[in-house]
Amino acid sequence: MFSKQVYENRRKVLIQKMAAAGEKGLLFFLGNVEAPAQYKDNCYKWRQESCWLYYFGLDDPRYAAILDIESGKETIYADDVEIGDIIWMGPQPTVQSKAELVGVAATAPYEKAFEAVKAAKAAGRPVHFLPPSRYYNTMVTEKLFPGEKPSTVFIETVVSQRLVKEPCEIEAIDDACALGYEMHSVGRDNIRIGIVEQEIVGKMEGLTLSKGWGVSFPTILTQHGETLHNHLHDKVIEPGKLMVIDAGAESNMHYASDFTRTYPTSGKFTTKQREIYQIVCDCNEHAFSITRPGITYREVHLATMHKMLEGLSALGLVKGDLDEMTADGIAGLFQPHGLGHNMGLDVHDMEDLGENLVGYDRGQIRAKQLGLGSLRMARNLKPGFVITDEPGIYFIPALIEEWKEKGLGKGIINFEKLKDYYDFGGIRLEDDVLVTETGARRCGPKRLPILPDDVEAAMAK
Amino acid sequence: MFSKQVYENRRKVLIQKMAAAGEKGLLFFLGNVEAPAQYKDNCYKWRQESCWLYYFGLDDPRYAAILDIESGKETIYADDVEIGDIIWMGPQPTVQSKAELVGVAATAPYEKAFEAVKAAKAAGRPVHFLPPSRYYNTMVTEKLFPGEKPSTVFIETVVSQRLVKEPCEIEAIDDACALGYEMHSVGRDNIRIGIVEQEIVGKMEGLTLSKGWGVSFPTILTQHGETLHNHLHDKVIEPGKLMVIDAGAESNMHYASDFTRTYPTSGKFTTKQREIYQIVCDCNEHAFSITRPGITYREVHLATMHKMLEGLSALGLVKGDLDEMTADGIAGLFQPHGLGHNMGLDVHDMEDLGENLVGYDRGQIRAKQLGLGSLRMARNLKPGFVITDEPGIYFIPALIEEWKEKGLGKGIINFEKLKDYYDFGGIRLEDDVLVTETGARRCGPKRLPILPDDVEAAMAK
Repeated sequence: MFSKQVYENRRKVLIQKMAAAGEKGLLFFLGNVEAPAQYKDNCYKWRQESCWLYYFGLDDPRYAAILDIESGKETIYADDVEIGDIIWMGPQPTVQSKAELVGVAATAPYEKAFEAVKAAKAAGRPVHFLPPSRYYNTMVTEKLFPGEKPSTVFIETVVSQRLVKEPCEIEAIDDACALGYEMHSVGRDNIRIGIVEQEIVGKMEGLTLSKGWGVSFPTILTQHGETLHNHLHDKVIEPGKLMVIDAGAESNMHYASDFTRTYPTSGKFTTKQREIYQIVCDCNEHAFSITRPGITYREVHLATMHKMLEGLSALGLVKGDLDEMTADGIAGLFQPHGLGHNMGLDVHDMEDLGENLVGYDRGQIRAKQLGLGSLRMARNLKPGFVITDEPGIYFIPALIEEWKEKGLGKGIINFEKLKDYYDFGGIRLEDDVLVTETGARRCGPKRLPILPDDVEAAMAK
Repeated sequence: MFSKQVYENRRKVLIQKMAAAGEKGLLFFLGNVEAPAQYKDNCYKWRQESCWLYYFGLDDPRYAAILDIESGKETIYADDVEIGDIIWMGPQPTVQSKAELVGVAATAPYEKAFEAVKAAKAAGRPVHFLPPSRYYNTMVTEKLFPGEKPSTVFIETVVSQRLVKEPCEIEAIDDACALGYEMHSVGRDNIRIGIVEQEIVGKMEGLTLSKGWGVSFPTILTQHGETLHNHLHDKVIEPGKLMVIDAGAESNMHYASDFTRTYPTSGKFTTKQREIYQIVCDCNEHAFSITRPGITYREVHLATMHKMLEGLSALGLVKGDLDEMTADGIAGLFQPHGLGHNMGLDVHDMEDLGENLVGYDRGQIRAKQLGLGSLRMARNLKPGFVITDEPGIYFIPALIEEWKEKGLGKGIINFEKLKDYYDFGGIRLEDDVLVTETGARRCGPKRLPILPDDVEAAMAK
């Protein structure tokens, strides 16, 4: 947990901003409860709700809170451990003493939070709430606020705060990146022909559990990188393949890291693999080099796609005017996803608050184009933003065939030549980037090897 | 997955038993959906619902099924992957082809399952459903069956089937135990003074992820064994303590193992530790020695508590007639939990179906006594049952003080002498046991060292 002042200040700013926007009434916060994996008492590893962590820090289940915009009153709602629970849970500090750790003076039993919401609504006071992410929170929210929508101004205020990372958060993200670096190093060092992918995943995730909370998202480790979210790890590692490892650690402070590297399973890239790899590597570098306050990440995305098309042109896979091809979204065939996303307490930071409210400035309209349409972060960059830089090139036979059939990219895409790439797989290269006052820096104390020669050298060790 | 015939046969038996009990109408099954850890697209590791796994095997989210007791018709409800999803998920087999793997001929879209339930209810046909465990399933069930209770006869029929493990299940449990053995060996071999408990947990859990689905429940690894369900791992390992490791692996087939061992952190037991350890070890052996078809596990529990009181008497911690002390529940002060529970696809097998319906025969009444009252499995044993044998002795200062204040165990419990044990911690020793035709055998190819000399020898390696 951070110091008491951090949480006090965050809540103070939140209330001030809400009041400044002319809002009245209550702000309702609902922490997570335990998530059953099997039956109700056999749960997944405990993870607190991120907005709760941000404003209230307390890392225990079944907490709620209410902030009163007008009076400034702050109340935490949770139940003290009963005597019978001591046998199972041991002596526990009181809710009161925990609340004091984050600067909240008033506490009350958990169920009273719901009564307070109902009473305020009955008295005609507005009660602002955020979109729930887990199903328990959905159930509670639907019962408390039937037919009502989460408050957009509340969401926007929270987003504006959480987007700009404080120094203590940047330090926490650097720590998560240090662990992510170790995690990826274990992954790379354990690639062996003939073993099952799952064996590597276990070693990587074991490390995150030894030193952090665990993984910041389910590990992607696959010889079929062309399937973007492939969470199966049941394949035997074969020679000559490309292995995409997209994985990150969540630290004990609950901040995320998120890196991707792509390795030749045999330890050396073939010429064909190296050609495509170099394009992706150049794109990753180009995006980083132009990331700075004042540019939108949409522009960075498009400039990166321009760079990608330049590389693909040189290989004869596409031909045409680079500006036109970029505008027409030709790159979407090769990279059907966006360049990156916000990162923080969530690996896709605040995604539960709504992708567009989080990733787009007012007035920015999300494109429909394949690739650009999936861009999660398009905003005008500000110092303190933490984003990912993750270009990729994939050869997805079903998608290529679809474009060919529909006549998309006709005369521009060399469909004949693309047939040679149907068993290629995919390449993605991802770093985590902090926007600074003057430009950007990569997060974490060390950068994973990324240049093709460096990757081969690391694998040869 | 097991062979098609396994699932076909299970469903056939289920329908026959329901029909034989005079039931009509439909049996409704609801598989799990993904469980969000943070936002909706960032989920915990996928785990299917256990009853679904038992009858339908298919290990994918968003599946439902309906069996018609009268016509015998079987239908699986799930959605095929859409073309847009192929980019993210890759080419996927159809629901139809998956259903065929488990011998179900008819398939329909997911939402049709709910329509079919509503239509049947509107037509006055009974629709039997099971208690939901996760919150999504609770939401769906509450909407489909407002104010209705799960069907007891359906629960009892499922329980009667799942309690008796088939040969293929016993093999799967032995495999899970083999992995649990490895997991515990890694734990024991990594105990080092000065490291944080979490480091060991990560190594153990990493192994389960490398070779199996993961852990069968959140690992308990603590120098405060007197707190029975202690899931924190933030303590530095100190010399002279007792470390309880209660942990199990879930195999890729989703069967559980569940073992507990207790280690002296310094590698050698003190005399005081060894005295108590030996009693628990004797209890574990005694329970196993009398486990056989025809005895109730309640009797085994009580006989084991008798043995425990015998040991505690010899140490002068209690005094009195052993039979009377057993009947009076004096052992509950030292072991406030039951001797064991059923094990299978869930580590507490079928707990979501109701502890008493699963663990108690008709006519058996659950005790209120501390210890015996927490006994999850009391039934008359039958060949094919798989249960845990997990006696423990804990010195819980808050509980001892409570008994003393209330005058419980007055003249029997040596409260004065117990003060020397307030910093002792706790000891638990647990094996997984299969009831055979003639007696019992321990599950898994190898047994973890348990005799105090063997434990010390293993730690010295």
